[in-house]
Amino acid sequence: MKKVEAIIRPEKFQSLREKLEEVGINGLTVSEVAGCGQQKGEQGLFRGQSFEIKLVPKVKVEMVVEAEHVDEIIKIVQSTCSTNQIGDGKIFVYSVEDAVRIRTGEVGLQAIL
Amino acid sequence: MKKVEAIIRPEKFQSLREKLEEVGINGLTVSEVAGCGQQKGEQGLFRGQSFEIKLVPKVKVEMVVEAEHVDEIIKIVQSTCSTNQIGDGKIFVYSVEDAVRIRTGEVGLQAIL
Amino acid sequence: MKKVEAIIRPEKFQSLREKLEEVGINGLTVSEVAGCGQQKGEQGLFRGQSFEIKLVPKVKVEMVVEAEHVDEIIKIVQSTCSTNQIGDGKIFVYSVEDAVRIRTGEVGLQAIL
Ligand SMILES: Nc1ncnc2c1ncn2[C@@H]1O[C@H](COP(=O)(O)OP(=O)(O)OP(=O)(O)O)[C@@H](O)[C@H]1O
Ligand SMILES: Nc1ncnc2c1ncn2[C@@H]1O[C@H](COP(=O)(O)OP(=O)(O)OP(=O)(O)O)[C@@H](O)[C@H]1O
Ligand SMILES: Nc1ncnc2c1ncn2[C@@H]1O[C@H](COP(=O)(O)OP(=O)(O)OP(=O)(O)O)[C@@H](O)[C@H]1O
Ligand SMILES: [Mg+2]
Ligand SMILES: [Mg+2]
Ligand SMILES: [Mg+2]
Repeated sequence: MKKVEAIIRPEKFQSLREKLEEVGINGLTVSEVAGCGQQKGEQGLFRGQSFEIKLVPKVKVEMVVEAEHVDEIIKIVQSTCSTNQIGDGKIFVYSVEDAVRIRTGEVGLQAIL
Repeated sequence: MKKVEAIIRPEKFQSLREKLEEVGINGLTVSEVAGCGQQKGEQGLFRGQSFEIKLVPKVKVEMVVEAEHVDEIIKIVQSTCSTNQIGDGKIFVYSVEDAVRIRTGEVGLQAIL
Repeated sequence: MKKVEAIIRPEKFQSLREKLEEVGINGLTVSEVAGCGQQKGEQGLFRGQSFEIKLVPKVKVEMVVEAEHVDEIIKIVQSTCSTNQIGDGKIFVYSVEDAVRIRTGEVGLQAIL
Protein backbone atom coordinates (compact mmCIF):
# COMPACT_ATOMS: atom_id res chain seq x y z
CA MET A 1 0.00 0.00 0.00
CA LYS A 2 1.05 3.55 -0.66
CA LYS A 3 0.02 6.96 0.56
CA VAL A 4 -0.34 9.58 -2.14
CA GLU A 5 -0.22 13.05 -0.58
CA ALA A 6 -1.16 15.93 -2.87
CA ILE A 7 -0.70 19.54 -1.77
CA ILE A 8 -2.90 21.56 -4.09
CA ARG A 9 -4.64 24.88 -4.61
CA PRO A 10 -7.79 24.90 -2.44
CA GLU A 11 -9.99 25.86 -5.40
CA LYS A 12 -8.96 22.67 -7.20
CA PHE A 13 -10.12 20.26 -4.53
CA GLN A 14 -13.68 19.86 -5.64
CA SER A 15 -12.89 18.91 -9.23
CA LEU A 16 -10.13 16.58 -8.02
CA ARG A 17 -12.52 14.76 -5.76
CA GLU A 18 -15.04 14.36 -8.56
CA LYS A 19 -12.44 12.89 -10.89
CA LEU A 20 -11.20 10.52 -8.19
CA GLU A 21 -14.71 9.31 -7.54
CA GLU A 22 -15.17 8.56 -11.23
CA VAL A 23 -12.33 6.02 -11.01
CA GLY A 24 -13.51 4.60 -7.70
CA ILE A 25 -11.15 6.38 -5.30
CA ASN A 26 -13.47 7.35 -2.45
CA GLY A 27 -11.30 7.21 0.64
CA LEU A 28 -9.36 10.36 1.33
CA THR A 29 -8.46 12.74 4.13
CA VAL A 30 -8.23 16.49 3.69
CA SER A 31 -6.40 19.09 5.81
CA GLU A 32 -6.02 22.83 5.59
CA VAL A 33 -2.32 23.64 5.43
CA ALA A 34 -0.15 26.54 4.35
CA GLY A 35 3.12 26.44 2.58
CA CYS A 36 5.77 27.83 0.40
CA GLY A 37 7.68 26.38 -2.52
CA GLN A 38 10.54 27.76 -4.56
CA GLN A 39 8.77 31.07 -5.05
CA LYS A 40 7.94 31.58 -1.36
CA GLY A 41 4.52 32.77 -0.29
CA GLU A 42 3.31 35.99 -1.75
CA GLN A 43 -0.40 35.46 -2.04
CA GLY A 44 -1.83 35.32 1.43
CA LEU A 45 -1.56 34.82 5.13
CA PHE A 46 -2.07 31.75 7.24
CA ARG A 47 -4.75 32.13 9.88
CA GLY A 48 -3.64 32.71 13.43
CA GLN A 49 -1.36 35.32 14.85
CA SER A 50 1.73 33.14 14.89
CA PHE A 51 2.51 33.72 11.25
CA GLU A 52 3.52 37.18 10.31
CA ILE A 53 5.38 36.02 7.25
CA LYS A 54 3.61 35.15 4.11
CA LEU A 55 2.44 31.64 3.45
CA VAL A 56 0.03 30.44 0.80
CA PRO A 57 -3.06 28.49 1.89
CA LYS A 58 -3.14 25.00 0.36
CA VAL A 59 -5.16 21.85 0.81
CA LYS A 60 -3.47 18.55 1.60
CA VAL A 61 -5.25 15.48 0.26
CA GLU A 62 -4.09 12.10 1.55
CA MET A 63 -5.13 8.86 -0.11
CA VAL A 64 -3.99 5.42 1.02
CA VAL A 65 -4.33 3.12 -1.96
CA GLU A 66 -3.11 -0.08 -3.53
CA ALA A 67 0.35 0.44 -5.02
CA GLU A 68 -0.92 -0.26 -8.51
CA HIS A 69 -3.25 2.75 -8.38
CA VAL A 70 -0.55 5.32 -7.67
CA ASP A 71 0.28 6.20 -11.26
CA GLU A 72 -3.35 6.72 -12.20
CA ILE A 73 -3.91 8.98 -9.22
CA ILE A 74 -0.84 11.05 -10.02
CA LYS A 75 -2.13 11.54 -13.56
CA ILE A 76 -5.53 12.62 -12.28
CA VAL A 77 -4.00 15.09 -9.82
CA GLN A 78 -1.83 16.57 -12.53
CA SER A 79 -4.56 16.90 -15.10
CA THR A 80 -7.00 18.35 -12.57
CA CYS A 81 -4.76 20.59 -10.47
CA SER A 82 -2.27 22.08 -12.91
CA THR A 83 -2.81 25.63 -14.11
CA ASN A 84 0.70 26.12 -15.53
CA GLN A 85 1.20 28.89 -12.98
CA ILE A 86 3.78 28.65 -10.22
CA GLY A 87 2.35 27.27 -7.03
CA ASP A 88 0.28 24.39 -8.45
CA GLY A 89 1.66 22.16 -5.74
CA LYS A 90 3.40 18.87 -5.17
CA ILE A 91 2.64 15.18 -4.87
CA PHE A 92 4.58 12.97 -2.47
CA VAL A 93 4.39 9.16 -2.33
CA TYR A 94 5.08 7.14 0.81
CA SER A 95 5.01 3.47 1.70
CA VAL A 96 2.29 2.33 4.12
CA GLU A 97 2.95 -0.76 6.20
CA ASP A 98 -0.57 -1.60 7.26
CA ALA A 99 -4.14 -0.36 7.39
CA VAL A 100 -7.05 -1.27 9.67
CA ARG A 101 -10.76 -0.54 9.23
CA ILE A 102 -11.79 0.38 12.76
CA ARG A 103 -15.41 -0.76 12.40
CA THR A 104 -14.64 -4.31 11.29
CA GLY A 105 -11.03 -4.94 12.22
CA GLU A 106 -10.17 -5.77 8.61
CA VAL A 107 -6.48 -5.23 7.91
CA GLY A 108 -4.25 -4.73 4.87
CA LEU A 109 -5.83 -4.25 1.46
CA GLN A 110 -9.22 -5.36 2.81
CA ALA A 111 -9.19 -2.28 5.02
CA ILE A 112 -8.98 0.13 2.10
CA LEU A 113 -11.15 -1.57 -0.51
CA MET B 1 9.99 3.04 15.24
CA LYS B 2 6.53 3.25 13.73
CA LYS B 3 3.94 5.93 13.29
CA VAL B 4 0.39 4.85 14.06
CA GLU B 5 -2.06 7.28 12.48
CA ALA B 6 -5.68 6.91 13.52
CA ILE B 7 -8.44 8.85 11.79
CA ILE B 8 -11.37 8.73 14.16
CA ARG B 9 -14.69 10.32 15.10
CA PRO B 10 -13.95 13.57 16.98
CA GLU B 11 -16.18 12.58 19.87
CA LYS B 12 -14.04 9.49 20.48
CA PHE B 13 -10.77 11.33 21.00
CA GLN B 14 -11.08 11.98 24.70
CA SER B 15 -11.71 8.39 25.71
CA LEU B 16 -8.96 7.22 23.35
CA ARG B 17 -6.47 9.52 24.97
CA GLU B 18 -7.43 8.33 28.44
CA LYS B 19 -6.98 4.68 27.47
CA LEU B 20 -3.61 5.44 25.86
CA GLU B 21 -2.42 7.21 28.99
CA GLU B 22 -3.37 4.19 31.05
CA VAL B 23 -0.82 2.12 29.11
CA GLY B 24 1.81 4.84 29.15
CA ILE B 25 1.37 6.28 25.65
CA ASN B 26 1.59 10.01 26.29
CA GLY B 27 3.15 11.42 23.13
CA LEU B 28 0.71 12.20 20.38
CA THR B 29 -0.18 14.87 17.87
CA VAL B 30 -3.75 15.74 16.93
CA SER B 31 -5.09 17.50 13.81
CA GLU B 32 -8.55 18.45 12.66
CA VAL B 33 -9.15 16.88 9.26
CA ALA B 34 -12.11 16.01 7.08
CA GLY B 35 -12.60 13.00 4.95
CA CYS B 36 -14.64 10.49 3.17
CA GLY B 37 -14.50 6.72 3.06
CA GLN B 38 -16.47 4.22 1.03
CA GLN B 39 -19.76 5.84 1.99
CA LYS B 40 -18.69 9.37 1.09
CA GLY B 41 -19.44 12.27 3.37
CA GLU B 42 -23.03 12.88 4.22
CA GLN B 43 -22.92 14.16 7.75
CA GLY B 44 -21.34 17.58 7.66
CA LEU B 45 -19.34 20.29 6.00
CA PHE B 46 -15.68 21.13 6.31
CA ARG B 47 -15.05 24.64 7.53
CA GLY B 48 -13.97 27.21 4.97
CA GLN B 49 -15.58 28.17 1.74
CA SER B 50 -13.43 25.95 -0.42
CA PHE B 51 -15.50 22.89 0.16
CA GLU B 52 -18.96 22.87 -1.22
CA ILE B 53 -19.13 19.13 -1.30
CA LYS B 54 -19.78 17.13 1.78
CA LEU B 55 -16.95 15.89 3.91
CA VAL B 56 -17.13 14.45 7.40
CA PRO B 57 -15.07 16.09 10.16
CA LYS B 58 -12.59 13.67 11.71
CA VAL B 59 -9.66 13.86 14.06
CA LYS B 60 -6.25 12.54 13.07
CA VAL B 61 -4.14 11.22 15.94
CA GLU B 62 -0.48 10.50 15.23
CA MET B 63 1.67 8.51 17.62
CA VAL B 64 5.31 7.65 17.01
CA VAL B 65 6.08 4.60 19.09
CA GLU B 66 8.37 1.61 19.44
CA ALA B 67 7.45 -1.03 16.88
CA GLU B 68 6.53 -3.50 19.58
CA HIS B 69 3.73 -1.24 20.84
CA VAL B 70 1.86 -1.01 17.54
CA ASP B 71 -0.42 -4.00 18.07
CA GLU B 72 -1.46 -2.86 21.51
CA ILE B 73 -2.28 0.62 20.24
CA ILE B 74 -4.32 -0.75 17.36
CA LYS B 75 -6.34 -2.82 19.82
CA ILE B 76 -6.95 0.21 22.02
CA VAL B 77 -8.06 2.34 19.05
CA GLN B 78 -10.43 -0.36 17.89
CA SER B 79 -11.96 -1.02 21.28
CA THR B 80 -12.31 2.70 22.03
CA CYS B 81 -13.33 4.13 18.65
CA SER B 82 -15.58 1.50 17.10
CA THR B 83 -19.33 2.05 17.20
CA ASN B 84 -20.19 -0.57 14.57
CA GLN B 85 -21.58 2.24 12.41
CA ILE B 86 -20.05 3.17 9.08
CA GLY B 87 -17.49 5.92 9.36
CA ASP B 88 -15.64 4.72 12.46
CA GLY B 89 -12.38 5.47 10.69
CA LYS B 90 -9.08 3.94 9.74
CA ILE B 91 -5.67 3.23 11.19
CA PHE B 92 -2.54 3.47 9.04
CA VAL B 93 0.94 2.31 10.09
CA TYR B 94 4.16 3.81 8.70
CA SER B 95 7.84 3.25 9.31
CA VAL B 96 9.75 6.09 10.99
CA GLU B 97 13.48 6.37 10.31
CA ASP B 98 14.49 8.59 13.16
CA ALA B 99 13.23 10.82 15.97
CA VAL B 100 14.88 13.71 17.81
CA ARG B 101 13.83 15.36 21.07
CA ILE B 102 14.46 19.02 20.32
CA ARG B 103 15.13 20.04 23.91
CA THR B 104 17.90 17.53 24.56
CA GLY B 105 19.07 16.35 21.17
CA GLU B 106 18.32 12.74 22.09
CA VAL B 107 17.73 10.60 19.00
CA GLY B 108 16.10 7.29 18.16
CA LEU B 109 14.13 5.44 20.83
CA GLN B 110 15.53 7.76 23.51
CA ALA B 111 13.70 10.61 21.84
CA ILE B 112 10.28 9.01 22.25
CA LEU B 113 10.58 7.33 25.63
CA MET C 1 14.31 11.66 -0.50
CA LYS C 2 13.27 12.13 3.10
CA LYS C 3 10.53 13.97 4.91
CA VAL C 4 11.65 15.89 7.97
CA GLU C 5 8.64 16.63 10.19
CA ALA C 6 9.23 19.06 13.03
CA ILE C 7 6.58 19.67 15.68
CA ILE C 8 7.56 22.92 17.32
CA ARG C 9 6.35 25.82 19.46
CA PRO C 10 4.26 28.13 17.25
CA GLU C 11 6.30 31.18 18.26
CA LYS C 12 9.44 29.56 16.88
CA PHE C 13 8.17 29.09 13.35
CA GLN C 14 9.15 32.45 11.95
CA SER C 15 12.79 32.28 12.97
CA LEU C 16 12.98 28.66 11.81
CA ARG C 17 11.73 29.62 8.39
CA GLU C 18 14.24 32.43 8.13
CA LYS C 19 17.13 30.13 9.02
CA LEU C 20 15.95 27.52 6.52
CA GLU C 21 15.77 30.09 3.78
CA GLU C 22 19.33 31.14 4.49
CA VAL C 23 20.49 27.63 3.57
CA GLY C 24 18.19 27.38 0.57
CA ILE C 25 15.36 25.29 2.03
CA ASN C 26 12.28 27.02 0.68
CA GLY C 27 9.74 24.25 0.22
CA LEU C 28 7.74 23.46 3.30
CA THR C 29 4.19 22.79 4.47
CA VAL C 30 2.82 24.03 7.78
CA SER C 31 -0.17 22.78 9.80
CA GLU C 32 -1.71 23.82 13.07
CA VAL C 33 -1.78 20.80 15.36
CA ALA C 34 -2.08 20.15 19.07
CA GLY C 35 -0.32 17.60 21.11
CA CYS C 36 1.10 16.24 24.25
CA GLY C 37 4.45 14.73 25.09
CA GLN C 38 5.74 13.13 28.27
CA GLN C 39 4.49 16.00 30.39
CA LYS C 40 0.99 16.03 28.91
CA GLY C 41 -0.71 19.26 27.97
CA GLU C 42 -1.09 21.86 30.64
CA GLN C 43 -0.74 25.12 28.78
CA GLY C 44 -3.74 25.52 26.55
CA LEU C 45 -6.76 24.20 24.74
CA PHE C 46 -7.17 23.03 21.18
CA ARG C 47 -9.81 24.95 19.26
CA GLY C 48 -13.16 23.27 18.74
CA GLN C 49 -15.53 21.83 21.25
CA SER C 50 -14.35 18.28 20.79
CA PHE C 51 -11.41 18.63 23.11
CA GLU C 52 -12.20 19.17 26.72
CA ILE C 53 -8.87 17.83 27.84
CA LYS C 54 -5.77 19.89 27.70
CA LEU C 55 -3.58 19.85 24.64
CA VAL C 56 -0.81 22.23 23.73
CA PRO C 57 -0.99 24.07 20.39
CA LYS C 58 1.98 23.28 18.17
CA VAL C 59 2.98 23.87 14.58
CA LYS C 60 3.93 20.97 12.33
CA VAL C 61 6.48 21.82 9.63
CA GLU C 62 6.99 19.26 6.88
CA MET C 63 9.94 19.44 4.50
CA VAL C 64 10.63 16.92 1.76
CA VAL C 65 14.33 17.15 0.97
CA GLU C 66 17.29 15.29 -0.45
CA ALA C 67 18.53 12.72 2.07
CA GLU C 68 21.86 14.48 2.38
CA HIS C 69 20.21 17.63 3.76
CA VAL C 70 18.51 15.92 6.69
CA ASP C 71 21.30 16.38 9.22
CA GLU C 72 21.69 20.05 8.46
CA ILE C 73 17.96 20.65 8.83
CA ILE C 74 17.85 18.80 12.14
CA LYS C 75 20.67 21.01 13.42
CA ILE C 76 18.84 24.13 12.31
CA VAL C 77 15.60 23.04 13.97
CA GLN C 78 17.40 22.27 17.20
CA SER C 79 19.36 25.48 17.32
CA THR C 80 16.32 27.58 16.42
CA CYS C 81 13.53 25.84 18.33
CA SER C 82 15.12 24.71 21.59
CA THR C 83 14.46 26.76 24.71
CA ASN C 84 15.66 24.12 27.18
CA GLN C 85 12.15 24.02 28.59
CA ILE C 86 9.95 20.94 28.38
CA GLY C 87 7.71 20.95 25.34
CA ASP C 88 10.22 22.14 22.73
CA GLY C 89 8.96 19.45 20.43
CA LYS C 90 10.10 16.57 18.29
CA ILE C 91 11.55 15.87 14.87
CA PHE C 92 10.58 12.74 12.94
CA VAL C 93 12.25 11.53 9.73
CA TYR C 94 10.48 9.41 7.12
CA SER C 95 11.44 7.95 3.77
CA VAL C 96 9.71 9.42 0.70
CA GLU C 97 9.36 7.21 -2.35
CA ASP C 98 8.64 9.84 -4.98
CA ALA C 99 7.77 13.47 -5.57
CA VAL C 100 6.02 15.21 -8.47
CA ARG C 101 5.89 18.91 -9.28
CA ILE C 102 2.29 19.30 -10.43
CA ARG C 103 2.94 22.25 -12.74
CA THR C 104 5.65 20.57 -14.83
CA GLY C 105 5.31 16.87 -14.18
CA GLU C 106 8.92 16.68 -13.01
CA VAL C 107 9.49 13.70 -10.70
CA GLY C 108 12.04 12.63 -8.11
CA LEU C 109 14.73 15.06 -7.01
CA GLN C 110 13.88 17.39 -9.89
CA ALA C 111 10.50 17.91 -8.32
CA ILE C 112 11.92 19.29 -5.08
CA LEU C 113 14.91 21.29 -6.31
N1 LIG D 1 9.93 20.38 -0.48
C1 LIG D 1 8.70 20.52 0.03
N2 LIG D 1 8.35 19.90 1.16
C2 LIG D 1 7.11 20.01 1.68
N3 LIG D 1 6.14 20.75 1.11
C3 LIG D 1 6.43 21.38 -0.03
C4 LIG D 1 7.70 21.32 -0.63
N4 LIG D 1 7.68 22.07 -1.76
C5 LIG D 1 6.45 22.56 -1.87
N5 LIG D 1 5.69 22.16 -0.85
C6 LIG D 1 4.25 22.45 -0.63
O1 LIG D 1 3.61 22.56 -1.89
C7 LIG D 1 3.01 23.84 -2.02
C8 LIG D 1 3.09 24.30 -3.44
O2 LIG D 1 4.44 24.33 -3.81
P1 LIG D 1 4.84 24.94 -5.23
O3 LIG D 1 3.93 24.37 -6.25
O4 LIG D 1 4.90 26.43 -5.15
O5 LIG D 1 6.28 24.34 -5.40
P2 LIG D 1 7.41 24.91 -6.31
O6 LIG D 1 8.61 24.03 -6.16
O7 LIG D 1 7.58 26.36 -6.02
O8 LIG D 1 6.77 24.69 -7.76
P3 LIG D 1 6.32 25.75 -8.83
O9 LIG D 1 7.57 26.20 -9.50
O10 LIG D 1 5.39 25.02 -9.73
O11 LIG D 1 5.65 26.86 -8.08
C9 LIG D 1 3.76 24.73 -1.04
O12 LIG D 1 2.93 25.82 -0.64
C10 LIG D 1 4.02 23.77 0.09
O13 LIG D 1 2.86 23.62 0.90
N1 LIG E 1 -8.08 5.20 1.70
C1 LIG E 1 -8.06 6.24 2.54
N2 LIG E 1 -7.04 7.10 2.53
C2 LIG E 1 -6.99 8.13 3.38
N3 LIG E 1 -7.93 8.40 4.29
C3 LIG E 1 -8.98 7.56 4.36
C4 LIG E 1 -9.11 6.45 3.48
N4 LIG E 1 -10.28 5.81 3.78
C5 LIG E 1 -10.84 6.49 4.79
N5 LIG E 1 -10.07 7.53 5.15
C6 LIG E 1 -10.32 8.49 6.24
O1 LIG E 1 -10.98 7.82 7.29
C7 LIG E 1 -12.23 8.44 7.56
C8 LIG E 1 -13.25 7.41 7.96
O2 LIG E 1 -13.36 6.47 6.92
P1 LIG E 1 -14.50 5.38 6.98
O3 LIG E 1 -14.48 4.77 8.35
O4 LIG E 1 -15.82 5.94 6.55
O5 LIG E 1 -13.95 4.34 5.95
P2 LIG E 1 -14.79 3.28 5.20
O6 LIG E 1 -13.87 2.51 4.31
O7 LIG E 1 -15.99 3.95 4.56
O8 LIG E 1 -15.24 2.32 6.39
P3 LIG E 1 -16.71 2.06 6.96
O9 LIG E 1 -17.34 1.07 6.03
O10 LIG E 1 -16.49 1.51 8.34
O11 LIG E 1 -17.42 3.38 6.97
C9 LIG E 1 -12.58 9.19 6.28
O12 LIG E 1 -13.44 10.29 6.58
C10 LIG E 1 -11.22 9.63 5.83
O13 LIG E 1 -10.79 10.78 6.56
N1 LIG F 1 5.60 10.06 20.35
C1 LIG F 1 5.04 11.10 19.74
N2 LIG F 1 4.31 10.91 18.63
C2 LIG F 1 3.74 11.95 17.98
N3 LIG F 1 3.84 13.21 18.38
C3 LIG F 1 4.56 13.47 19.49
C4 LIG F 1 5.18 12.45 20.23
N4 LIG F 1 5.81 13.01 21.28
C5 LIG F 1 5.60 14.33 21.20
N5 LIG F 1 4.86 14.62 20.13
C6 LIG F 1 4.45 15.95 19.67
O1 LIG F 1 5.48 16.87 20.01
C7 LIG F 1 4.94 17.91 20.83
C8 LIG F 1 5.99 18.34 21.81
O2 LIG F 1 6.38 17.23 22.57
P1 LIG F 1 7.35 17.44 23.79
O3 LIG F 1 8.49 18.31 23.39
O4 LIG F 1 6.58 17.89 25.00
O5 LIG F 1 7.86 15.97 23.99
P2 LIG F 1 8.45 15.39 25.32
O6 LIG F 1 8.81 13.95 25.06
O7 LIG F 1 7.52 15.68 26.43
O8 LIG F 1 9.81 16.22 25.45
P3 LIG F 1 10.21 17.26 26.56
O9 LIG F 1 10.68 16.47 27.73
O10 LIG F 1 11.31 18.07 25.94
O11 LIG F 1 8.99 18.09 26.86
C9 LIG F 1 3.71 17.31 21.46
O12 LIG F 1 2.80 18.35 21.83
C10 LIG F 1 3.18 16.44 20.35
O13 LIG F 1 2.47 17.25 19.40
MG1 LIG G 1 6.03 27.62 -6.17
MG1 LIG H 1 -17.26 5.02 5.68
MG1 LIG I 1 6.94 17.55 26.87
